[in-house]
Amino acid sequence: MSKVAVIMGSTSDLPVMQDAIDILKELGVEVDVDIVSAHRTPEKLFSFSKSAHTNGYSAIIAGAGGAAHLPGMVASLSPLPVIGVPVKSSNSIDGWDSVLSILQMPGGVPVATVALNGAKNAGILAAQIIGSSNSEIMNNIISYKEGLKEKVIKGAEEVKKSF
Amino acid sequence: MSKVAVIMGSTSDLPVMQDAIDILKELGVEVDVDIVSAHRTPEKLFSFSKSAHTNGYSAIIAGAGGAAHLPGMVASLSPLPVIGVPVKSSNSIDGWDSVLSILQMPGGVPVATVALNGAKNAGILAAQIIGSSNSEIMNNIISYKEGLKEKVIKGAEEVKKSF
Amino acid sequence: MSKVAVIMGSTSDLPVMQDAIDILKELGVEVDVDIVSAHRTPEKLFSFSKSAHTNGYSAIIAGAGGAAHLPGMVASLSPLPVIGVPVKSSNSIDGWDSVLSILQMPGGVPVATVALNGAKNAGILAAQIIGSSNSEIMNNIISYKEGLKEKVIKGAEEVKKSF
Amino acid sequence: MSKVAVIMGSTSDLPVMQDAIDILKELGVEVDVDIVSAHRTPEKLFSFSKSAHTNGYSAIIAGAGGAAHLPGMVASLSPLPVIGVPVKSSNSIDGWDSVLSILQMPGGVPVATVALNGAKNAGILAAQIIGSSNSEIMNNIISYKEGLKEKVIKGAEEVKKSF
Amino acid sequence: MSKVAVIMGSTSDLPVMQDAIDILKELGVEVDVDIVSAHRTPEKLFSFSKSAHTNGYSAIIAGAGGAAHLPGMVASLSPLPVIGVPVKSSNSIDGWDSVLSILQMPGGVPVATVALNGAKNAGILAAQIIGSSNSEIMNNIISYKEGLKEKVIKGAEEVKKSF
Amino acid sequence: MSKVAVIMGSTSDLPVMQDAIDILKELGVEVDVDIVSAHRTPEKLFSFSKSAHTNGYSAIIAGAGGAAHLPGMVASLSPLPVIGVPVKSSNSIDGWDSVLSILQMPGGVPVATVALNGAKNAGILAAQIIGSSNSEIMNNIISYKEGLKEKVIKGAEEVKKSF
Amino acid sequence: MSKVAVIMGSTSDLPVMQDAIDILKELGVEVDVDIVSAHRTPEKLFSFSKSAHTNGYSAIIAGAGGAAHLPGMVASLSPLPVIGVPVKSSNSIDGWDSVLSILQMPGGVPVATVALNGAKNAGILAAQIIGSSNSEIMNNIISYKEGLKEKVIKGAEEVKKSF
Amino acid sequence: MSKVAVIMGSTSDLPVMQDAIDILKELGVEVDVDIVSAHRTPEKLFSFSKSAHTNGYSAIIAGAGGAAHLPGMVASLSPLPVIGVPVKSSNSIDGWDSVLSILQMPGGVPVATVALNGAKNAGILAAQIIGSSNSEIMNNIISYKEGLKEKVIKGAEEVKKSF
Repeated sequence: MSKVAVIMGSTSDLPVMQDAIDILKELGVEVDVDIVSAHRTPEKLFSFSKSAHTNGYSAIIAGAGGAAHLPGMVASLSPLPVIGVPVKSSNSIDGWDSVLSILQMPGGVPVATVALNGAKNAGILAAQIIGSSNSEIMNNIISYKEGLKEKVIKGAEEVKKSF
Repeated sequence: MSKVAVIMGSTSDLPVMQDAIDILKELGVEVDVDIVSAHRTPEKLFSFSKSAHTNGYSAIIAGAGGAAHLPGMVASLSPLPVIGVPVKSSNSIDGWDSVLSILQMPGGVPVATVALNGAKNAGILAAQIIGSSNSEIMNNIISYKEGLKEKVIKGAEEVKKSF
Repeated sequence: MSKVAVIMGSTSDLPVMQDAIDILKELGVEVDVDIVSAHRTPEKLFSFSKSAHTNGYSAIIAGAGGAAHLPGMVASLSPLPVIGVPVKSSNSIDGWDSVLSILQMPGGVPVATVALNGAKNAGILAAQIIGSSNSEIMNNIISYKEGLKEKVIKGAEEVKKSF
Repeated sequence: MSKVAVIMGSTSDLPVMQDAIDILKELGVEVDVDIVSAHRTPEKLFSFSKSAHTNGYSAIIAGAGGAAHLPGMVASLSPLPVIGVPVKSSNSIDGWDSVLSILQMPGGVPVATVALNGAKNAGILAAQIIGSSNSEIMNNIISYKEGLKEKVIKGAEEVKKSF
Repeated sequence: MSKVAVIMGSTSDLPVMQDAIDILKELGVEVDVDIVSAHRTPEKLFSFSKSAHTNGYSAIIAGAGGAAHLPGMVASLSPLPVIGVPVKSSNSIDGWDSVLSILQMPGGVPVATVALNGAKNAGILAAQIIGSSNSEIMNNIISYKEGLKEKVIKGAEEVKKSF
Repeated sequence: MSKVAVIMGSTSDLPVMQDAIDILKELGVEVDVDIVSAHRTPEKLFSFSKSAHTNGYSAIIAGAGGAAHLPGMVASLSPLPVIGVPVKSSNSIDGWDSVLSILQMPGGVPVATVALNGAKNAGILAAQIIGSSNSEIMNNIISYKEGLKEKVIKGAEEVKKSF
Repeated sequence: MSKVAVIMGSTSDLPVMQDAIDILKELGVEVDVDIVSAHRTPEKLFSFSKSAHTNGYSAIIAGAGGAAHLPGMVASLSPLPVIGVPVKSSNSIDGWDSVLSILQMPGGVPVATVALNGAKNAGILAAQIIGSSNSEIMNNIISYKEGLKEKVIKGAEEVKKSF
Repeated sequence: MSKVAVIMGSTSDLPVMQDAIDILKELGVEVDVDIVSAHRTPEKLFSFSKSAHTNGYSAIIAGAGGAAHLPGMVASLSPLPVIGVPVKSSNSIDGWDSVLSILQMPGGVPVATVALNGAKNAGILAAQIIGSSNSEIMNNIISYKEGLKEKVIKGAEEVKKSF
């Protein structure tokens, strides 16, 4: 069965990254969670990234804030699709630093970047990656999207009633 | 065999998007190319996106500039992973408009965003998505990354000689 | 009688968008309110937009946050004037994302954009559109502007007294 | 018959603003053109704006660059819908100055802002405003949108052939 | 005796602009205060600005937020030096809108712009303008600057003691 | 007679700063020009600034690019009004660096900031400062503003003829 | 023994700058603290900076907010390495002003800039400068980095247990 | 004797980084040059960084563009002071990406950041670091600064003559 690794640079990123873990479980995808700091545990970054594709992962989700080098360095070391979550940390310049240092990767080493603090979308994207070759997960995504639609339609009905 | 669709909002995006097409072919992935404008051909946007996952595609790459709605709208309509390429168009405000209107998708509807004009990385990412369940493509990616490394090492040798 | 549709991407946009509804009523314009999400209810987006000009609307006000595609997609599908309200949502990058993804529409598909969270001005603009061919509404606008002036002049008098 | 006034702060804005004039004529709308500088001819700004709604205009398009005060000051003085075109002038800070000084109007005095240098869209928007109560112009807009679609579809066919 | 006019677009700007009034009084300069809205009381803007230089004012301080047109429009209508204070209003995009719409005036019509919410500096600058031809006010400024220095030196001593 | 000092951080700023020199002469104000670098000639910065108000100057215009410290440091050392011109230098980040490092002075030490590369407006502002207590210069400014108006009106006539 | 000077523009910067003082002591480096304002005590700026390299300092850390001229002016006057800490002050435009006015120094006069409010890193950098020729301090830095790693690894273990 | 390593992510960075090499030689500092790509040669990044402090280097200068991870990753792996040069590469978003991804390092891992393309200042800073414990290099820096001053003073004389 397919698995996704959700890693982050610091335990302080966990409240944001929890959304990725929750939605992956909801969509039927197995998740492993770890703290890997590009700047404080570079050796762990290397060993984790080099072996991820032989350890059963189909995709890696990496969240980090500020000068966020974790997603890009994992992408440098692993042939797997890497999804980057820019986290708006406390001394961030409005989040621009994490967004740009994850998004603007040089040619040859992509990171699939999602919105600022968009860990939920990172989880869905990882599920879609698995779903592109796994019909069960694909069906879960289709159902999930149906659910989103129904929630909006129900909300619309309530709003229309109130006017 | 797995296929990727490369679509863009306008023929003027083709010079940028060509990089995605070229690298996909180099990595052994079949590609279809089309022009789909979210704002000028919304019906085609609908029919294309609704059927893409039943038409043999594993991923969709969508490039657009300015207020770039194409990648997000495709992601709204398809359960496939959608990769967005912000294109720096002529009246763009330094590319910020296309970057932000592709990246900042709401929870539930991810777009895997790459760097401004980063079509090459979009192609590699699409190949990695296929490679996560296809060992042949995975091996092509691993070889490609080896090639990048060798090129840098060779360049380094020449630079060191010149000093 | 002329009518304006006020739509928004999510019920969470209602507190901002209420200003448009209130001022339209104050200026004597009939209003319909609905939730239409470009990303979660794309089919409703299509059916609403395609039929709006034959359903008695003179203008459409659409509010959305983040990568805000609703106003532009409505403008793509309807020949009516569409007014876009950039909403500053919770994970927005200071509002720049919604401003740019509404404002920077490509040639051929305009969205009349107002200030960040400027739903009140969207309502006045919709009334001005109707007023350009309806003397009753035009007079209401002229009176409204007189009222603004009087309020400032009164405030000025109080300030001057206090010094 | 309905008429639109296209004004701008300086003759140097004419190359950008010409797009508005051209598309209005193409859509069957009568146009008057004038130079009105908020900062150098404030008296003309006053007399023009105060009388525009009694001079047969249905909408005013105003283009200006830098600290662009023309659209907002016209909106302050006229009850008509005012469309603002941010022009990217030579010493502009990447266009941000004209965009923000037109877009961010205070509550009570809207300016319908279009994209940077988006004069063409300003013209279409003015035609849509007239079209909302004039079926002939409305039909011209519907035809124009059809034309956009056909051009994209034709371009798509050529692109597909070339691959 | 020389006088300075302190005007602002709205009573809500008074808490920020009070700093200008206070420092002017401290530096021995007479002050008049008024509310003049470029967008809501354009006639008052005209009459005030046209007559200011014949009404005994040596300089005008104008504060406004958002698309802040007041300082520039006063500068358009008066030959006096005009000092602009960008006010960070509630729906401002981080203050960039008021800064740029006051600072980026076209050639021919300067506004002496101070920092965001920098009303105190606007007051000092107005006093310096008077001081450049009035030795009493000049001396007050020299004393004021001495006072600033002494305060820092005293603070430095306390800090050094605490370490 | 009143004099203005125009100083700049580097000879490479002269092409931009020439506009200040030219307009001051046109408005009948005497000008001295010098190169004073805050970072490379700090002693000259000190001696120049400390003595400027006893050397017959009524105002100082200081232009600099990048991390532009010249205007603020002069303002720190002189009781005269100091006008800062942000110069867009070659490695500038779009001019934002010079704009912000001149504009955002702390409370107590104002710099009258003009637009990016706005040396002409710096010259006019210096003349207005002198004009506030010198009726001859004041009249020159009034005539200059009349000239601006006439030029726009003449341009307007030509534009109207061409349509 | 080597010493570092930690100076700042205002006592209000002390809460941010305390991090530099604390980490320097932790790393075994002697610290002197002082308040030196470029804008309010320019003479002290001069005397401090001119003599720092003969007063036993190996590096200077200077923190300031807004239009932050302190680090650059110290670098202009001292041959020592100067480390600049951009402080996010109350009326700052999101910190961009202090970042850019410290970072963008002209060729010839470097300031070693750290992150917004990054005083801790300024302290570590100063220790590294000393450590590059002092093996005791170098060893302290190596131990400190080991400690960072251990803390992350321990945090990772706890996170993994919780899933 | 002290040595500095100048490394960069790509041979395309060499034209910018050459300034660092030249000024280091001019200041009497030995230099080694190498290409080390964080994203394409991560193993070389590791081996280089881990051993730099035992290979005779006193400081490392690292230049990179876009999502520039090289300086931060070197700083993660080496106890030496690391100087980062943000390079404005071709698809950069105006240089903001490289500036922010080098500057905004998390607490514990500083990078001494210089201006965009500011390689010359990186070289001077490295020399200052050596100079802080090496009186010969210190004297070279003092002479260099004298030279800067003389050049400005000479330029000033020529400018003054021309007026």
